[in-house]
Amino acid sequence: MARAALFDVDGTLTDTNHLHVTTWWEAFRQAGQQVAMHDIHRAVGLGSTDLIARLLGEDRDRDQDDRISAAHKTLYGTYFERLPALNGARDLLHALDDRGWRIVLATSAGGEELGALRRAIDADDVIAGVASADDVSSGKPAPDPVHHALEIAECPPEEALFVGDTVWDMQAASRAGVRGVALLCGGIPRGDLEEAGASAVFADPADMLEHLDGEVLTGKQ
Amino acid sequence: MARAALFDVDGTLTDTNHLHVTTWWEAFRQAGQQVAMHDIHRAVGLGSTDLIARLLGEDRDRDQDDRISAAHKTLYGTYFERLPALNGARDLLHALDDRGWRIVLATSAGGEELGALRRAIDADDVIAGVASADDVSSGKPAPDPVHHALEIAECPPEEALFVGDTVWDMQAASRAGVRGVALLCGGIPRGDLEEAGASAVFADPADMLEHLDGEVLTGKQ
Repeated sequence: MARAALFDVDGTLTDTNHLHVTTWWEAFRQAGQQVAMHDIHRAVGLGSTDLIARLLGEDRDRDQDDRISAAHKTLYGTYFERLPALNGARDLLHALDDRGWRIVLATSAGGEELGALRRAIDADDVIAGVASADDVSSGKPAPDPVHHALEIAECPPEEALFVGDTVWDMQAASRAGVRGVALLCGGIPRGDLEEAGASAVFADPADMLEHLDGEVLTGKQ
Repeated sequence: MARAALFDVDGTLTDTNHLHVTTWWEAFRQAGQQVAMHDIHRAVGLGSTDLIARLLGEDRDRDQDDRISAAHKTLYGTYFERLPALNGARDLLHALDDRGWRIVLATSAGGEELGALRRAIDADDVIAGVASADDVSSGKPAPDPVHHALEIAECPPEEALFVGDTVWDMQAASRAGVRGVALLCGGIPRGDLEEAGASAVFADPADMLEHLDGEVLTGKQ
C-alpha cells in the first residue's frame, strides 16, 4: 500500500493567496462591503460561502452572496494565464513520486480555476487525483476533503501527509487523523499553523524538498 | 512641549499592503522576474530601490530597476480613487489630537500617492506634517525618517511613539530611540514585530483607539 502526500493548492503549490485577497476585496467593495484585506487573507482556503459568512457574519444580506462570489471569480479569472507556481512545487511533487508517495490534490478550487492551477504547477504526470470541494458536503476545516483525498489515494490516514498553508488545512488534517505539514509561503504565521496542529513547518515547497529525507517528514522522530 | 504620535501609513492607517504586493509582483513579472508574493509582502515598507535590492539581490541587472518601479507605480496608481483606510484610522488620529498628541506621518510614499493616501485617511485637519522618504537620504529601517518626523513634531524621542506595521518601522523607531507600537493589520506576524522592537501590539487602529488610555500606550508600566 502506497503512502500518500495530499496537497492543498492555493498558497501551498501556487502563489495565489494574495491574488485571492485583492480580488475578494474588490468584489466585496463593489457590493458595498468594506472588508480588511488582512481578514480576507486569514479566510482564504475556505470555500466561497464559508469565506463570505466568516467575513460578513451570519446576519448579512445573503442575497448578495452569489453576486460577490461571481465578482471574485471574474476578477480572479483575469489571472488564469499567469498564475505563478511556488518555488520548487513541481520538483517537490516529482521527488515524492520518485519515492513512492501517491499524490492527491485537495482543494476548494474546481472547473476552469483548477485547470489553470494545474497548468501552473505543471506536474500532471505525477498527480494521481483531485479531491475537489465540490465532491463533499463540507469543506475545510471539516475533515471531509481529507477523507475524500485518502479514498482517492487508497491510503489509510496514518500513512498520509497533508501539506497546506492555512489553519483550515491543519485543522482538517488533524480531524482526519492525518499528519499536517505546513508551508509559510501562503503568508500565515508559523504560530497559527502550529497551534492548528502542524507537525512540521517549512518555508515553501523548495524548502520541504530539501528536507524530504529528514526525520520530521518521514515521521520517524 | 507636545507629545508626538508618528505614523507609518501603508498597512498602518491604510489597507494597502496587499495592493502593493500584487502590483509589485506583476511589475516584476513583466520584467521577467518571478518573485514570491510572501517575500514581497515582507519587503513592503522599504523604499522602492531598497525593496528591489532585497528581492532581486545586489547582483541584479540594475538597469531594470527604473522600469520595475515605474510599472509598480502605474499599476498601483489604478487604485488611487479607492484606497481603503483601515478600521478606526480617522477616529484614532482625532482621539490622539484631542489628547494633545502632535501627529506626523512618516512614509516612503510621496507626490500623488501620498495625496491619495491622505484622502483615504480623511484626517488632514489633525495631521501636523509629513516626513516623506524623499526628505532623507536613507529610508526605514534607518532612523532618518523618524528623526525627520521628530523635527517636524518638535518633540524629543522619549516623548514620542512611532506606530507602524512592519519590522522596518519597529527597527527605525528603536534606532531613533522612539517607542514602537505595532499594528497587525498589515499582515506581519506578531512575533516578527516584537523581535524588531515593538513595545505594544494592537490588531488595527480601532483596537489601538480602544486602548488609548491604557498603561501600555502611555508608557506608564
